[in-house]
Amino acid sequence: MKGKVFLVGAGPGDPSLLTIKALTLLQKADVVLYDSLVSPEVLEFCPTHCQKVHVGKRKGQHSKSQNEINEMMIAFAQKYKTVIRLKGGDPLILGRSGEELSALREANIEAEIVPGVTAASAAASALQIPLTHRHLGQGAIFLSGYSKENPNQDGLPDYDWEALVKNRFTLVFYMGLTNADRIAEKLIAAGMPQETPACFMSHLTLPGERFYFASLKNVKEVLEKEKPKFPALFLVGDILQLSRITQKSTQETKNAVMLLFHGSKQKSNEPESLKTFLENTLMLRTEYGFIGGDFQPNWEESFSTLLAQKPNRIFVIPFFLLPGKHLNKDVPEIIKKMKEKTNAEITLHAQESLLSVIKPLAWEWVRQWQNES
Amino acid sequence: MKGKVFLVGAGPGDPSLLTIKALTLLQKADVVLYDSLVSPEVLEFCPTHCQKVHVGKRKGQHSKSQNEINEMMIAFAQKYKTVIRLKGGDPLILGRSGEELSALREANIEAEIVPGVTAASAAASALQIPLTHRHLGQGAIFLSGYSKENPNQDGLPDYDWEALVKNRFTLVFYMGLTNADRIAEKLIAAGMPQETPACFMSHLTLPGERFYFASLKNVKEVLEKEKPKFPALFLVGDILQLSRITQKSTQETKNAVMLLFHGSKQKSNEPESLKTFLENTLMLRTEYGFIGGDFQPNWEESFSTLLAQKPNRIFVIPFFLLPGKHLNKDVPEIIKKMKEKTNAEITLHAQESLLSVIKPLAWEWVRQWQNES
Repeated sequence: MKGKVFLVGAGPGDPSLLTIKALTLLQKADVVLYDSLVSPEVLEFCPTHCQKVHVGKRKGQHSKSQNEINEMMIAFAQKYKTVIRLKGGDPLILGRSGEELSALREANIEAEIVPGVTAASAAASALQIPLTHRHLGQGAIFLSGYSKENPNQDGLPDYDWEALVKNRFTLVFYMGLTNADRIAEKLIAAGMPQETPACFMSHLTLPGERFYFASLKNVKEVLEKEKPKFPALFLVGDILQLSRITQKSTQETKNAVMLLFHGSKQKSNEPESLKTFLENTLMLRTEYGFIGGDFQPNWEESFSTLLAQKPNRIFVIPFFLLPGKHLNKDVPEIIKKMKEKTNAEITLHAQESLLSVIKPLAWEWVRQWQNES
Repeated sequence: MKGKVFLVGAGPGDPSLLTIKALTLLQKADVVLYDSLVSPEVLEFCPTHCQKVHVGKRKGQHSKSQNEINEMMIAFAQKYKTVIRLKGGDPLILGRSGEELSALREANIEAEIVPGVTAASAAASALQIPLTHRHLGQGAIFLSGYSKENPNQDGLPDYDWEALVKNRFTLVFYMGLTNADRIAEKLIAAGMPQETPACFMSHLTLPGERFYFASLKNVKEVLEKEKPKFPALFLVGDILQLSRITQKSTQETKNAVMLLFHGSKQKSNEPESLKTFLENTLMLRTEYGFIGGDFQPNWEESFSTLLAQKPNRIFVIPFFLLPGKHLNKDVPEIIKKMKEKTNAEITLHAQESLLSVIKPLAWEWVRQWQNES
């Protein structure tokens, strides 16, 4: 059997910026070859049988060459049905998908590309700016800040810099950190005003996200002082005048989560794995309990355990597929009982039913199946 | 109460290219103001109480002005908690989000941007090309093919065309149809070789998706002959040499879907609504039945109804939250019984459990709640 390779964009880091299509593919992947820009949380969405293979660059570790990656994709596709080549951002922008597609075509392996949210879009959303604007940048240019193969061997790509500057478009340099000071020099020499705002962004959309503002003329200074971390984008353009950084909440409210399930006679570790996932990724105290019948743990015991942590806010999520008696009658009663026992603010996640939540996923499962020959 | 406005990218059309974040926000939206580029399927993900307001341009219908849209967003945010301004593609690229953000700031309304997959990425994935390539286009330029406000009043934006051409980057013109012939002339006059490949794409990622290939010198001819439909992207660049169009399957296999649920004593119209959704959006015969207990309709009756349609392939989706007895024992037995009654190919959607499928959504619900003050 020959499988198919999906070149999938994982978005800029934050797993919530995965597309539905990427998510449903990951959930049935046999193998995932992933870059360093892919978050560990994203890999959590793969099934237990999935092989996860890191092929990206990591500090102090020999990374796979492009040829090695191509060979691995081909070998896996000859063995497994669903092989995913998972790339940070959009695989089509500065992701070297051209080489991978060529190799797959040559080996006669079917390939499909799943586009993703590119880092530039995530950067702009964090900065609260658009990338294009009628007055401050009618277009946007996405380009690399680094090149292995330029004739001068200085790592700087061999652009016509005056042409880059002329339309006053927003410039987004991917892998823009190493050469940022020389890029700024080139842009100034090409006629861009020294006062043009610039910004470095590292760990976009992730907990360590940082922004470093500069103007073209003091890029070097800011680099030396702030030492931004890899991986970083370097954004240059008047559009940055509009920037307002989203203030990340730093309050120390003690949040907690309570999950409510309908019990099952057969033991399952799924609720436990969801609890662990939420605790690890969100750093939030989480408990779960069953309602209806005498399944263990029941919600009352779990709620007592949760209260012992003295949370200020509790988020309750009921997991019921259809809006039956549990959702309409039992859950409101449980919330009422909870409120009698604590002053914490209790928020119920109001969903019509899990089925309506799953609808888009089910729809995509059927579509993917339909497209299989 | 003052609500919050989310400027959300809906992706290029295909609902599976929505992000998880966009999906979970739509599922709790009070109001959605949507553009013409947003698919009807995407709006199906909103809850029943949600107000859906069309504010885009449609043929023969007066569209809302930008000021009217701004005022509506503000008025809704003063009344409702979750207001979504839903835009095709990525709201940050050629989406006029700058104006909307300014208006919201002035009115002191909280705003958040949710980036999306931009149309250029979807176009490239359909064409099976990257947007950047070491040899065929080191960067990509995203720009508008149309302008209301240029000094010459000819609708063509006032770019420095020579600068656009010099680096031989991939050029992606949004709203590129009306002026495509004059854009081609400008590019040739600016020094771009006449043989440079170009492509129009309309109804990207949707069932009516079409591609029209040209080279710069015969753009006018192709336009006159083929009459591509709005909305369309116009892509120009050597990268198009690599293009292979994904062949959409046109086979007439009779596919059908069978949904299996655990019954509930309380009647719910959720399974019926999922069935209707799949039948309407995928044009696929769909039935559902309950297993366990004597709930109606039971799966055996529904399966008979399905078989009367003589399908060649049947896709079975079991909906169980935890991998209990139904999933591990009953479903395999049901599949076995089904196979005794038909020669149709029966495929079981193999999922570990719905809970693992819901994991990323639950994680995002908690995150959104955490970020609320």
